[in-house]
Amino acid sequence: MIIGKVLGSVVSTRKNENLVGSKFMIVEPVKSMAKENSRIVAVDNIGAGIGEYVLVALGSAARIGCDKETKPIDAAIVGIIDDGESFK
Amino acid sequence: MIIGKVLGSVVSTRKNENLVGSKFMIVEPVKSMAKENSRIVAVDNIGAGIGEYVLVALGSAARIGCDKETKPIDAAIVGIIDDGESFK
Amino acid sequence: MIIGKVLGSVVSTRKNENLVGSKFMIVEPVKSMAKENSRIVAVDNIGAGIGEYVLVALGSAARIGCDKETKPIDAAIVGIIDDGESFK
Amino acid sequence: MIIGKVLGSVVSTRKNENLVGSKFMIVEPVKSMAKENSRIVAVDNIGAGIGEYVLVALGSAARIGCDKETKPIDAAIVGIIDDGESFK
Amino acid sequence: MIIGKVLGSVVSTRKNENLVGSKFMIVEPVKSMAKENSRIVAVDNIGAGIGEYVLVALGSAARIGCDKETKPIDAAIVGIIDDGESFK
Repeated sequence: MIIGKVLGSVVSTRKNENLVGSKFMIVEPVKSMAKENSRIVAVDNIGAGIGEYVLVALGSAARIGCDKETKPIDAAIVGIIDDGESFK
Repeated sequence: MIIGKVLGSVVSTRKNENLVGSKFMIVEPVKSMAKENSRIVAVDNIGAGIGEYVLVALGSAARIGCDKETKPIDAAIVGIIDDGESFK
Repeated sequence: MIIGKVLGSVVSTRKNENLVGSKFMIVEPVKSMAKENSRIVAVDNIGAGIGEYVLVALGSAARIGCDKETKPIDAAIVGIIDDGESFK
Repeated sequence: MIIGKVLGSVVSTRKNENLVGSKFMIVEPVKSMAKENSRIVAVDNIGAGIGEYVLVALGSAARIGCDKETKPIDAAIVGIIDDGESFK
Repeated sequence: MIIGKVLGSVVSTRKNENLVGSKFMIVEPVKSMAKENSRIVAVDNIGAGIGEYVLVALGSAARIGCDKETKPIDAAIVGIIDDGESFK
């Protein structure tokens, strides 16, 4: 998993029907965990807010570990870091 | 997932039979989400047009989340971004 | 998927028994789709020739989408691009 | 797998319920195995301590190989290297 | 898959019980197939020796294609290249 900061959300009206109801957030990985220009779009399953530091699971874990096995999701917010500032 | 711009399509006449009927699009990730030279070929499942900004799912999500579990697909367009220009 | 040019083949006499009969090709991704030094070895399922531009599926798609679910394959040539020169 | 050094732990109180009880460690890959800025968060299954060099499995192996098939985990500490200093 | 040179082995006494009996090798990808600092730890299933050039399968292929579906393995040596020197 990586830690990133939630920057905002994305809206997609025309989309795969398996994604209806999903909330898409733009997450910027903290500098120690990624190269430049590596923001991702992650589905939020736990109600993260803009500016919060979150734990993001990538790959099949984002689907299977979040009870969304049949959705086209490859990144999911799975936790909010208690003291995210220390990872900046 | 990442956001990218649809640049055009690719034609492959000789291909794996599981891919017959698939539409292959060239997608260029937006700058904040990728390093240079990282265009990909994604299967379009929702009718995206050239120039549109789309949401692309990568890895097994592109197959399983799009009801194409037995096709050799590792990238799929799964949504069209309403205001893609803001992610340029 | 990515598009690459077939550079040649690789021979491995001592190998995993699940790979007996597989044809290994060296593929160089086109410049717009990869960083430098990112050639891969892909199994050819459709009879691609040296110099041809091909579509390569990566990850589990290379196994499951090609009816080779139990083989240790993570990259497969799944199509030959009709006009590969335009992607150079 | 890659080898990395355990730097510390991360606490997430609000998280996916499938992660309750998981211990999250920050791991820095050794220099020969990663580019700069590629720390990851890995779940610890074997009691690794801060400063130890560990073997980290990535992707679906982190879930399935650790009997955590339904948890949103994409990286797991699966071994402690006997002589980790030699990989610095 | 990628081609790499076997540099040596790694010993881990305290490890996930699913890994007991696995042999861990350090593999350095050949220059044309990887960026700098991208050595990996791969499980050897075919008796590769130090200095040999080998074919490495990554991701789920390393588990499923090698009859080790329930082990936390994300890289496996699956072949020895007959003329590895030509890929240096």
